[in-house]
Amino acid sequence: MADLATLPTPCLLLDEPRMTANIARIHGRLAGTGVSYRAHLKTAKSVEVARRQMAGPQGPAMVSTLKEAEIFADAGVADLTYGVGIAPDKLERVRALRARGVDLGMILDSVEQAEAVAAASTPDLPLAALIEIDADGHRSGVKPDDAGLLRAIAAALAPRAELRGVLTHAGESYFAKGQAALEAAAEGERLAVVGAAALLREAGHPCPVVSVGSTPTLMGATSVEGLTEFRAGVCVFFDLFQAGVGVCSPDEIALSVLTEVIGHQKDKGWTITDAGWMAMSRDRGTAAQAVDQGYGLVCDLAGRPIPDLVVVGANQEHGIVAQRAGAPYPAPDLPIGTRLRILPNHACATGAQYDRYEVVGPEGWRASWPRFSGW
Amino acid sequence: MADLATLPTPCLLLDEPRMTANIARIHGRLAGTGVSYRAHLKTAKSVEVARRQMAGPQGPAMVSTLKEAEIFADAGVADLTYGVGIAPDKLERVRALRARGVDLGMILDSVEQAEAVAAASTPDLPLAALIEIDADGHRSGVKPDDAGLLRAIAAALAPRAELRGVLTHAGESYFAKGQAALEAAAEGERLAVVGAAALLREAGHPCPVVSVGSTPTLMGATSVEGLTEFRAGVCVFFDLFQAGVGVCSPDEIALSVLTEVIGHQKDKGWTITDAGWMAMSRDRGTAAQAVDQGYGLVCDLAGRPIPDLVVVGANQEHGIVAQRAGAPYPAPDLPIGTRLRILPNHACATGAQYDRYEVVGPEGWRASWPRFSGW
Repeated sequence: MADLATLPTPCLLLDEPRMTANIARIHGRLAGTGVSYRAHLKTAKSVEVARRQMAGPQGPAMVSTLKEAEIFADAGVADLTYGVGIAPDKLERVRALRARGVDLGMILDSVEQAEAVAAASTPDLPLAALIEIDADGHRSGVKPDDAGLLRAIAAALAPRAELRGVLTHAGESYFAKGQAALEAAAEGERLAVVGAAALLREAGHPCPVVSVGSTPTLMGATSVEGLTEFRAGVCVFFDLFQAGVGVCSPDEIALSVLTEVIGHQKDKGWTITDAGWMAMSRDRGTAAQAVDQGYGLVCDLAGRPIPDLVVVGANQEHGIVAQRAGAPYPAPDLPIGTRLRILPNHACATGAQYDRYEVVGPEGWRASWPRFSGW
Repeated sequence: MADLATLPTPCLLLDEPRMTANIARIHGRLAGTGVSYRAHLKTAKSVEVARRQMAGPQGPAMVSTLKEAEIFADAGVADLTYGVGIAPDKLERVRALRARGVDLGMILDSVEQAEAVAAASTPDLPLAALIEIDADGHRSGVKPDDAGLLRAIAAALAPRAELRGVLTHAGESYFAKGQAALEAAAEGERLAVVGAAALLREAGHPCPVVSVGSTPTLMGATSVEGLTEFRAGVCVFFDLFQAGVGVCSPDEIALSVLTEVIGHQKDKGWTITDAGWMAMSRDRGTAAQAVDQGYGLVCDLAGRPIPDLVVVGANQEHGIVAQRAGAPYPAPDLPIGTRLRILPNHACATGAQYDRYEVVGPEGWRASWPRFSGW
């Protein structure tokens, strides 16, 4: 049987008790509000994780690629939203999924896309779309007060395709500093879709779904009035970036990379490991936060952070571990062969470097769960 | 049959004529010098590419993971060096490869590792190691003039294990600015191993292999005296980072990501595509160069760069394409559904996001070649 002392390194560890607690926290945030949790599956890309994350075996769930939609459909998920503006060339795969009985919704933010969706809809197989709203200038979406464009899209969808509602993602909430800013980001996200829904309804377009979501806003929201669903994915695992935003502590991060010490450059205080950027990903999201975690925060084999020890540099298959400047204690002795766990900056990016999770519970390693990538 | 108009996006394109020209350039650099090319296979991670890249069907080749060694051994490669300092826990896999008849060399830079390698060697199955030399303070390795440590490692290997030679990688050459700095980096790399080899030979240790390598130093070297082999991998494809170093032009980059336009934010001059950081990788290596290429340089479907158009931002599955500030021409019109090709910052990192290459020749798409990841 595998254990942390013998698993080949580097590999991706999933702390199941932490994940279970994170999932309970997500559902607890929405309990009693009447707002459903649409589990974003893009972070974990794992059927095993999805089954624990979703409210029920058929969903609801959110995906970031059609490959995710297809794999989760194979696993019985039937209520899915594809959360990237639909490209006309992808409509054939969308139709194939709907023909299998999967209620797959798409998002769009232009009349051109709405016309393509309407043209690809048939009486026996109408397609369904939500209008993406731009809550905060982060990337895509219709401005929430652009009644003309909202109604033109709705008109272009009707009557062949179904206008399912409105949806937004407050991506700028990742850069909120402090609780008040987090609450403001969540409120801005909510008001953007509630307002857009009102503009559509005033023009006679039903708008049953009013959807928001991001991990920071799920954790920061003070009101869910007018919303029907909340989406988020990173919060299943959390990561150092979210810890920097302030919505989790490092002790709640469920993912880590298991690595082994392979050398030292003692004159520089460096410990070299076999977890380079291929193992951690190139994500350096914490570089712009108050505490730069390098390529990851170093923990002992039990998952406890070693004070001020970070991955300060990374080559493809080499991690360079060193103490932060000014650390008030001696550097730990980490002989060749020492095994360490590294908490990642970004769960989505680090996860994507692996094809499986090594699941760890109170008794140690207990299972490998497959994980997929690609489109 | 697939073509660039119908391949599902995003996907990874490999321009075969460019790759063929790059490989010819590599071999041309070393032709007639008596120095062999040990093909680094970590960039492409593809049996199809390796067969074209290597001097012969059995190698020589370099790998960055034991999974690479195992897969290329399955494909008939018999002369391999594993280029990451050996961890004691990996010696069992090394022995298994050598027991299959693969001449796998390892690298190390400490007496502890040498003792572990000697202990894992048996009379019927001795292991072979090269001493890694630190040419420029980049990461691992023994200082080239540290005769005491060099000789202690050699003594710890003998007589059970084989000391095969010395090896270095001038990683700092990636940051050389200008031809003179590039030539100096290559000369520093060469002198480091030639000097270390001399110190070992003076103490009676044969040191048959004297190995250097990096894409910049292969392109910049003015002398190979005393060397027996040169290793490099990125130069099979090249990338924007290497173009920034000055060792290739964007027209020689053989990898690109095929993407489709999915929307616009016209007030900001943004075109949104379906190639986000998951498709490009999080590598932002050009950010520290004179010309920051964002998450990639945008080309038309024929692979010609569109002047001053770059991927200025990226979410997981969204690329944000915009003109550089101050571009002296109008922004191009890129309607929804337009297909583009994006040149990557870093071939190793972008390649790792995909499980196959879509190979493109003068007649268009011609094949899919599998590509692997992991450890």
